[in-house]
Amino acid sequence: MKHELLTDMYEFSMANGYYQTLPHDKQARFDVFYRKAPDDGSFVISAGLMQVIDEVKNWHFSTDDIAYLRSLNHFSDDFLFYLTAAHNRCSIKAIPEGTPVFPQEPILSISGPLIDVQLLETLILNIINHQSLIATKAWQITSVTGGRPVMEFGARRAQGPDAAIYGARAAIIGGCSSTSNVLAAKLFNLPAVGTMAHAWIESFPDELTAFRAWAKIYPDNAALLVDTYDVVNSGVPNAIKVFKELRAAGHEPVGIRIDSGDIAQLATKARKMMDEAGFTNAKITASNALDAHIIKSLLDEGAPLDNFGIGERLITSSSSPVLSGVYKMSALENDGKWVPKIKISNSREKITLPGNKQVYRLYDKHDPQHAVADVIALADEQIGTEIAAINADVHVTWNKVILTDFIAKPLLKQVLTLGKAAPIETDTFAIQHFAQTELAQLPAAAKRLLNPDRFPVYLTKRLADLQQKLVDEAQK
Amino acid sequence: MKHELLTDMYEFSMANGYYQTLPHDKQARFDVFYRKAPDDGSFVISAGLMQVIDEVKNWHFSTDDIAYLRSLNHFSDDFLFYLTAAHNRCSIKAIPEGTPVFPQEPILSISGPLIDVQLLETLILNIINHQSLIATKAWQITSVTGGRPVMEFGARRAQGPDAAIYGARAAIIGGCSSTSNVLAAKLFNLPAVGTMAHAWIESFPDELTAFRAWAKIYPDNAALLVDTYDVVNSGVPNAIKVFKELRAAGHEPVGIRIDSGDIAQLATKARKMMDEAGFTNAKITASNALDAHIIKSLLDEGAPLDNFGIGERLITSSSSPVLSGVYKMSALENDGKWVPKIKISNSREKITLPGNKQVYRLYDKHDPQHAVADVIALADEQIGTEIAAINADVHVTWNKVILTDFIAKPLLKQVLTLGKAAPIETDTFAIQHFAQTELAQLPAAAKRLLNPDRFPVYLTKRLADLQQKLVDEAQK
Repeated sequence: MKHELLTDMYEFSMANGYYQTLPHDKQARFDVFYRKAPDDGSFVISAGLMQVIDEVKNWHFSTDDIAYLRSLNHFSDDFLFYLTAAHNRCSIKAIPEGTPVFPQEPILSISGPLIDVQLLETLILNIINHQSLIATKAWQITSVTGGRPVMEFGARRAQGPDAAIYGARAAIIGGCSSTSNVLAAKLFNLPAVGTMAHAWIESFPDELTAFRAWAKIYPDNAALLVDTYDVVNSGVPNAIKVFKELRAAGHEPVGIRIDSGDIAQLATKARKMMDEAGFTNAKITASNALDAHIIKSLLDEGAPLDNFGIGERLITSSSSPVLSGVYKMSALENDGKWVPKIKISNSREKITLPGNKQVYRLYDKHDPQHAVADVIALADEQIGTEIAAINADVHVTWNKVILTDFIAKPLLKQVLTLGKAAPIETDTFAIQHFAQTELAQLPAAAKRLLNPDRFPVYLTKRLADLQQKLVDEAQK
Repeated sequence: MKHELLTDMYEFSMANGYYQTLPHDKQARFDVFYRKAPDDGSFVISAGLMQVIDEVKNWHFSTDDIAYLRSLNHFSDDFLFYLTAAHNRCSIKAIPEGTPVFPQEPILSISGPLIDVQLLETLILNIINHQSLIATKAWQITSVTGGRPVMEFGARRAQGPDAAIYGARAAIIGGCSSTSNVLAAKLFNLPAVGTMAHAWIESFPDELTAFRAWAKIYPDNAALLVDTYDVVNSGVPNAIKVFKELRAAGHEPVGIRIDSGDIAQLATKARKMMDEAGFTNAKITASNALDAHIIKSLLDEGAPLDNFGIGERLITSSSSPVLSGVYKMSALENDGKWVPKIKISNSREKITLPGNKQVYRLYDKHDPQHAVADVIALADEQIGTEIAAINADVHVTWNKVILTDFIAKPLLKQVLTLGKAAPIETDTFAIQHFAQTELAQLPAAAKRLLNPDRFPVYLTKRLADLQQKLVDEAQK
């Protein structure tokens, strides 16, 4: 579906207003950032950039779109004529997908005609907010499994088809190993996984017949769902019978899946039964209403689980289902010169960061595998060997520092220049690998699921001074 | 985007298995129902049927889909050949969109080739779960505003583009008056609303200039956002200046919008200022992180609010972001005869209802505007003037009743017969009106937001006996 009209009405009202009031080619810059990570975490895994670039690159209004807008009797003809000719003239710099990003840091910064970038706000936020939310939730869940694979199983509980499709991709970026969603698997070249539902078992006269029928068709993919009737008294004994038949025929069974009941007790009993029958390599998959905290508690208890299939709590991030990323003007062109802009607020922490910016991740010069802080700077600042900086967290009292002994890596990369896209990483597992590497460089305390420590994020003195100057001017 | 592959992998694995094991034209029936309403409510407003019918009607696998499935090296060639020819041969009966439905009641019942209906599970659940969830949340919110209009403003925080588009439609079904989402407005013929964002104000040298510029372009649509700088000291006084200029020019202003701060106090002050300036008809819209409980508390406190714009808490149903509708086999054809099926569970309430069913809403014969109970019956049962019934809630002890003095209305309607669609209501506001009528007929106690009373749902004795018989057979 075309998404040019997936825009709040007020964007069109404002764009039409800009057209009537301001030079038509007036340029503006907007930044996407968030203020609060989901689940009281300390960061968000960025995701969604690939789809954003696709949408912005191909952005144009169809005759049908224009006819609809005209039918609203709200816009001037010359504005609608401008829209018919509007196409991708924007530039975007963005932090690569899979990067852990902290509050206030621009994840994406778009510049272009004010009218165009205003009209793109809703769609860009929709995509970045959604995919970053799910990637972050997937990181939470996969961070507690000690390397055990997590399969994304949520398509039926996702909030609509796109949420299932792009949510599956984001889940892989955040650390999942595979998805049950065949369409997402096709679109993004992911492993599609899953064996049988209870309906398979119920389509046969009894469980054993159902298992045997399965093993005959998929002798090398016999992962049997053992909880249709009674895990311990029926499911596992029947599975073991079929496993023996398979092995006798030269095939090794995959294992069992448990989707209900007390997973820890059932898995412990099933493990013992399978081990005693000689199937020590048969895996146990758990898949009932799991999330990071439940998995951690099951594993802490010693439940012998090998894989996890996670549905609704991953694909909707149900414990924290909204990432409130915002899109704020940071600069506006006036007579050919960029003028930095802020959004003032009574709440100090809601005042935005003005100007064209860059985000640097600083690594310890003597231990370059360890990230020590982030610094948000103006894009034209030279980052030398010392940075005079202010803590970006307005709640910190002793907030002035001189940063030294670092290696600085700029995070924002140019990905679209006047409509022309630069190559970005689009392979989902390459992005996952990148995310894992970036995450490994963060302090453990910032990655705690409960009460994480704040990773230090600073503003350069020049950026902080510019912000203060604009606050002072606004109060005059 | 085509959605035939928006299916869990195990559906394909099972379908391929059915193909190898069972007659290819074996018919099956599956029911969609839920067990627990979101936010501990007592019911769900059904939504999503229109999209489901569109998807099922046009269901077919493209050459590209088949090539992808073949590339997985998991399916037999004859099964893939069957899929190339597979098209819509299913029949669906469903409860109309906008109907309040209770736990266990089949919202939708689909019959057709087992392979086809199995492959449709994921997509049907995805759509019905999502749209019914949002319609229900919209009902909650609009039920507390005393008729004041609620605008759906959530596109930027929705979980992906489809969630924004179909979520907006579901929000209208549940009671919202309009949406900010222009694409949803176009697709579903809804009013698209919204005026300006803070970015408009910031694009001008000062707030007053920004307001004046707006009023010049939209003299009859001057709804001014007054919280960019300071609501009481700047926003409202500037708005009043512009309102006076508008009125002098023969236009009546619409009002103001407040998007931050303490809404109750700010609205009270703004109301007083506007009234004293002679703008008693200027409306106040509130739009900051609102939901049903916050709105109720604001109105209980007497906040002079006229309209509400609701974002993330509506479009994601953030307080309860998952509706766990399920899709369970209720009958399977064997040698041309339908055999009722159940899914057994250790948990009594998870045992499914077997057979082809109908749901009746019973109205008091002497007061036919009052619904008194629902009855789930077998589809071929004659409903006379008395029904011997059992409470469907397994927690009820004294559960046998004889129902009399009712008028019975069947809720499930045939909407698709062997692929041919019957006309259904597709006008979103007609569905909203229908929902309002149905809701008005429910007892007030069932509509409480906190601790609602359970609306009585019964099984006919014949259905209850059939279920018990199948439970007994499974335990033999």
